[in-house]
Amino acid sequence: MEREKLIEKVTVEILRRLEKESQAPSTTVGVSNRHIHLSQGDLEALFGKGYRLSKWKDLKQPGQFAAKETVTIVGTKGELNKVRILGPIRQKTQVEISKTDAYTLGIRAFIRESGDIENTPGIVIKGPNNIIGINEGVIIAKRHIHMPPAFAKQHSFRDKQMVSVRFEGERALEFDNVVIRVSDQFVNEMHIDTDEANAGNIKNGDVGRIVKD
Amino acid sequence: MEREKLIEKVTVEILRRLEKESQAPSTTVGVSNRHIHLSQGDLEALFGKGYRLSKWKDLKQPGQFAAKETVTIVGTKGELNKVRILGPIRQKTQVEISKTDAYTLGIRAFIRESGDIENTPGIVIKGPNNIIGINEGVIIAKRHIHMPPAFAKQHSFRDKQMVSVRFEGERALEFDNVVIRVSDQFVNEMHIDTDEANAGNIKNGDVGRIVKD
Repeated sequence: MEREKLIEKVTVEILRRLEKESQAPSTTVGVSNRHIHLSQGDLEALFGKGYRLSKWKDLKQPGQFAAKETVTIVGTKGELNKVRILGPIRQKTQVEISKTDAYTLGIRAFIRESGDIENTPGIVIKGPNNIIGINEGVIIAKRHIHMPPAFAKQHSFRDKQMVSVRFEGERALEFDNVVIRVSDQFVNEMHIDTDEANAGNIKNGDVGRIVKD
Repeated sequence: MEREKLIEKVTVEILRRLEKESQAPSTTVGVSNRHIHLSQGDLEALFGKGYRLSKWKDLKQPGQFAAKETVTIVGTKGELNKVRILGPIRQKTQVEISKTDAYTLGIRAFIRESGDIENTPGIVIKGPNNIIGINEGVIIAKRHIHMPPAFAKQHSFRDKQMVSVRFEGERALEFDNVVIRVSDQFVNEMHIDTDEANAGNIKNGDVGRIVKD
């Protein structure tokens, strides 16, 4: 009798947890390999006057694409070849690398949100037409979730909110300090870099559960 | 009056949590860069007959040391130079790399505990005397905590138990599936690889809190 009670108690608890989990909002991962966003001026310096990027494939975020073109970025200790250019053109050139890449290049980069490039290190960029130096713009991207307003509203998330995201599996983990960015230009997607993906054995399309801090 | 009650309630809760946290067992991190353990046979093949490793520096685990000698490991897609040999000599050669390294080399490696090398990929190893191939032995080390029996007993941990470990800071996270290994040959130390360290912005000597699953 004691045993049956225990089984019932455990069953109820498991069902309660499963229900809670199934209600937790989730997000699909896009793993960001190192890449670069270019200003029109830097694009033309690297590839020639009047140059336009060729689309290779669309990314999940509407309007964003991977270009056919790549560049080489050069640090004091090493260089990284075939760094993909992402379009469209931006106001300012920005290079997004992993911490592993920062060691390879021999630079000290900081964890920053996209666009927040003040006082970040510069780098040398090689294209087919020229080699240029930028004075700032290299960042290690802060992990973040792109979120459309409807989804944010449904789950009571707000722009710039910090959350945690859990992943299951062999290298299960929970990332804290994940920043939510809400925009009607976004679809629901979490961006992590290759170090973070490898640490959690996470691949493109894997699903994480969003937990509020 | 309501406000004062609320302040008291919050204060009591914060004190309770701080006390709980301060009692949580902790562990100090050692970040494992890629490295290799060699059998005497493979050491002699790579460096010459009767060769003995020269100690460069002691590691934190008693009796373990980094040797002055390094090798190059060669995959189908790339190679990694200056891979440190760790001593002493082992029964079987074992190469420990990160997932990032596995992509660089072009091999598909699995997450395994040290010594569990059955059905793992082989690799080519270059030393000053020769270049050799091993048929198995490349692993991505499963994150683990070395723990002396007294510490394990004090906190009711047992050998092979799985726990989670929390790290604070800019890239705060919690690693699940961390395996505890208890031995009187060990001092308390958590080993993670460079991908895991970079994902959490963790460096040698950082302290994590051990949480039971």
